Amino acid sequence: MTDSEIQSAILDMGQRARAASHALNKLSTEQKNTILRAMADEIVARSTPILTANSKDLAAAESNGLSKAMIDRLMLDDKRLAAIAQALREVADLPDPVGEVLAEWTRPNGLRIRKVRVPIGVIGIIFESRPNVTTDAASLCFKTSNATILRGGSEAIHSNRALANAIQAGGERAGLPPDSVQLIPFTDRASVEHMARMDAHIDLIIPRGGKGLIEKVVATARMPVIKHYDGVCHVFVDASADLEMAARIVVNSKAQKPGVCNALETLLIHQDVLASFAPILSAELQANGVQVRADATSLPHFQENATLATEEDWSTEYLDLILSVKTVSGIDEAIQHINRYGSRHTDTIITKDELNAHRFQHEVDSAVVMHNASTRFNDGGEFGFGAEIGISTDKLHARGPMGLAELCSYKYLVFGEGQVR
Amino acid sequence: MTDSEIQSAILDMGQRARAASHALNKLSTEQKNTILRAMADEIVARSTPILTANSKDLAAAESNGLSKAMIDRLMLDDKRLAAIAQALREVADLPDPVGEVLAEWTRPNGLRIRKVRVPIGVIGIIFESRPNVTTDAASLCFKTSNATILRGGSEAIHSNRALANAIQAGGERAGLPPDSVQLIPFTDRASVEHMARMDAHIDLIIPRGGKGLIEKVVATARMPVIKHYDGVCHVFVDASADLEMAARIVVNSKAQKPGVCNALETLLIHQDVLASFAPILSAELQANGVQVRADATSLPHFQENATLATEEDWSTEYLDLILSVKTVSGIDEAIQHINRYGSRHTDTIITKDELNAHRFQHEVDSAVVMHNASTRFNDGGEFGFGAEIGISTDKLHARGPMGLAELCSYKYLVFGEGQVR
Repeated sequence: MTDSEIQSAILDMGQRARAASHALNKLSTEQKNTILRAMADEIVARSTPILTANSKDLAAAESNGLSKAMIDRLMLDDKRLAAIAQALREVADLPDPVGEVLAEWTRPNGLRIRKVRVPIGVIGIIFESRPNVTTDAASLCFKTSNATILRGGSEAIHSNRALANAIQAGGERAGLPPDSVQLIPFTDRASVEHMARMDAHIDLIIPRGGKGLIEKVVATARMPVIKHYDGVCHVFVDASADLEMAARIVVNSKAQKPGVCNALETLLIHQDVLASFAPILSAELQANGVQVRADATSLPHFQENATLATEEDWSTEYLDLILSVKTVSGIDEAIQHINRYGSRHTDTIITKDELNAHRFQHEVDSAVVMHNASTRFNDGGEFGFGAEIGISTDKLHARGPMGLAELCSYKYLVFGEGQVR
Repeated sequence: MTDSEIQSAILDMGQRARAASHALNKLSTEQKNTILRAMADEIVARSTPILTANSKDLAAAESNGLSKAMIDRLMLDDKRLAAIAQALREVADLPDPVGEVLAEWTRPNGLRIRKVRVPIGVIGIIFESRPNVTTDAASLCFKTSNATILRGGSEAIHSNRALANAIQAGGERAGLPPDSVQLIPFTDRASVEHMARMDAHIDLIIPRGGKGLIEKVVATARMPVIKHYDGVCHVFVDASADLEMAARIVVNSKAQKPGVCNALETLLIHQDVLASFAPILSAELQANGVQVRADATSLPHFQENATLATEEDWSTEYLDLILSVKTVSGIDEAIQHINRYGSRHTDTIITKDELNAHRFQHEVDSAVVMHNASTRFNDGGEFGFGAEIGISTDKLHARGPMGLAELCSYKYLVFGEGQVR
C-alpha cells in the first residue's frame, strides 16, 4: 500500500469509530454485558479457525527465527482460548462505571451541577506480540462504551484478525454497533504514525509494548498517550525493619514473577542493618537463584552470586533473577536515590518506624508507595479493580493500575430554571 | 543566543524546577498561604518598577503598531496591579486540595489502600500578551505545590520579568524554595520547542493563547498538554421551550461578554417554534447590537441585521456580536449538528420536556451540557471552584473548568503488615 492509501484507510476507520462511539453511548449496561458474553461464545465456537490462523503466525515466527519466549507469547491453544473467553465473561460481570455520579452540588443562584462519568470516545491501542491483547483491550474499552482502533504487531496479524473477526461477529449478532471494535487489517508500519496524528478521531492512545514502541508513539502523537513504561521498583530496608519480614518481602518482590513491571529491581539497605540483614537475605536469594549486583559497601556481605554494580545498574529494569543492592546512610539517601533512579512505579519501605514510613510514602514520587508489603501488589486485580489495561507511569489522568474507571472521562450537567449572568 | 545555548538554558531550568518540586512537596498549607500573601505584598511594594517595566512594553507595542485591543491587554496601572495582588490573596484563601484522601479501602488480605491527591510536579505555562497570567498561573500552580516554568510572549517580556521578580523575591523572603517559579528571561522562539521536548523535567504543559500557539505546542510536545481550544457553543430552543426564557438566555449567552470562550456562537431553533420565537428574539438581538447569520429557512424571520449563513459559519467562533442561526427538524438534528460542528465546550437546551433535556445532556459530547441556563455559566468561579486556570476542551485528566484540583495528580499509599503474593 502507498502512504496515502494507508492514510486514507486509517482516516476512514477513524471516522467510522467516531460514529460508532456515539452509538455505543446509547447502549445500556445490560446490552453491553450481553454483547460481551456473545463475544466470548463466538471465540469458543470459532476455536478451529482461530487456531489455524495462529498456526500461520507460529510458522512465520519459526522461519523468521523468533526466540522461544516470543513464540510462546504468540501461541494459542484451546486452554488459552478458553481463558480469553473467560476474561470476556469476567469483564461482563464487572460493575459499569459509565454514568456514575462523581459529585453534585447546588450554587447560590440555584444552578444544580452534576459531574458524571462518561466514555472517553475513541481509544487507539497499539500493541505487540500477545494476541490476547486484541480481546482484553477491546473488551475493557467496550465495557466503558468506548470505540477502539487496534493495531497489533505484524507477527500476530493472522491470530489478531481471527480474534477480532470473532468478537465483531459474535458482538454484532447481539447488538454491537458496527465499527465499535476495528482492527487495522494490514501491517504497514506507517499506520502507527497516521493513527498518532489523527487527533480529530482518536481521543487517547495506549501503547502496550516495549520502550521503543512507546517512545515512537510519544514522539508522534498529537492526542494524549498513557504510557506504561518500565518499573524500576525499590525496597528500602530501614534500620528498624523486622528483618525476617524484610527478607520475605524482598524475595517475593524479586522472585515470584521476575518478568513483570512490578517486580523489585533495586534493594536499598540501611547501613545499620547491613551486617545483620545480608546473611539472612543472601541465603534466601541463593535458594531462589537470584544474582546480586552490589555496591562496594554491600558486596562483601553478599559474597556468593554477587558482583560489583555499575552506575547503569541503578536505572536498569532487569526483568530477570538479578537484584541490584545498595547500602544507604538512611531514609534521606533512600528517598533521593529512588526519586533520581526510579521510574515512579512502585516502591516499598520496610520499617517499624511510623514516622519514617510516613515520610517515605509522602516524599517518594511514585504511583504506588507501600509500607511493609511486596511490590507485586501494584496490580489492578490485587487492588480490587477486577481488570486492568495496564499500570500507568504517567501522572496525568491515570496513575498506577488502570481499571475501567480510568478508561472514562467525565462531563458536567447543569440544571437551571432560566438563570443568566 | 544559539539554539544549543537556549537548549542548555531550558534544561538547566528544568532540572532546577524538578529539585524545587521536591522541596515544594514538603511545605504545609499554612506556609504556602503565607508565601502567597508575601507575594501579593511585594507586587504592591514594587508597583513603581513594575509600571516602569510595563511602559517599555507599551512603547514597543505602539512603535510595532499593535492594535488598541492588544495594547489594552498589555497595559498595567495601579488598579490592575491591585487586582493582581488581590487575586494572589484570594488563592491563599482557597482550600488546599493537596493531601485530600480521594478513596480508601481494605483488601481481603488486609492491605489498606489509600488514594491521595498530590502535586503533578513541574508545570510549563506558555502564554501570550496578558502579563497577569504570570502571577495567576504561578499562584495556582504554587498553591498545589507544583513548580512552574513560565514562558510569556515577547511583547510583555519587561512586565513579565518585573512581576516574576516580585513574586520570587516576596515569596522567597517568606520561605518559597528557590526555582519554584521560573520565568524564561529571553524571548527566542526556540524556547517553546525545547520546553515541549523536555518531558524528563516538565510533567504537563498548559498553553494559554490562540489556536496557533496551542497547535504548535501539541505538534511538538512529548508530555501531556491540556488544551483550551475555541468555544463554538450552542443553544437549542426546543419545541416546548418557554420562549421568553429562551430569548433571555440566548441574549445573555451571546451578548453579556461576547469575547470569551463560553459565549454563544450558534443558535438552533426547533422548526415548530421558529415563527413564534424569531420575532421575540429578533428585537432583543437588535437592541443588543447582535448581527445574525441565518440559514435559508430562518433568514426570512430575521430580516433586519441578518445575512445568509455559509457552511463555514457553523464552525466559527466569532468572539463578537455575531450569531449564526439554524432551524432544525428536532432534537436529533440538533444533537447531530452540535456533535459535528461544536468544539465540545458548552451547549444548552431550552425545553420543558424533561425527556428531551435528558437525551440532550446525555448525547451531546461536550464538557458542560446545560438545561435552561446561559452558556456563560461554564466558568470556574460560577462553578464554585474559586479560581480557574482555564476551561479545558480535552477529555483526559481535566474537562471543562480547571480549578486547583485539576492541577493535581494522585498516588496510592499501601499499608501492609508483611503481605506477599
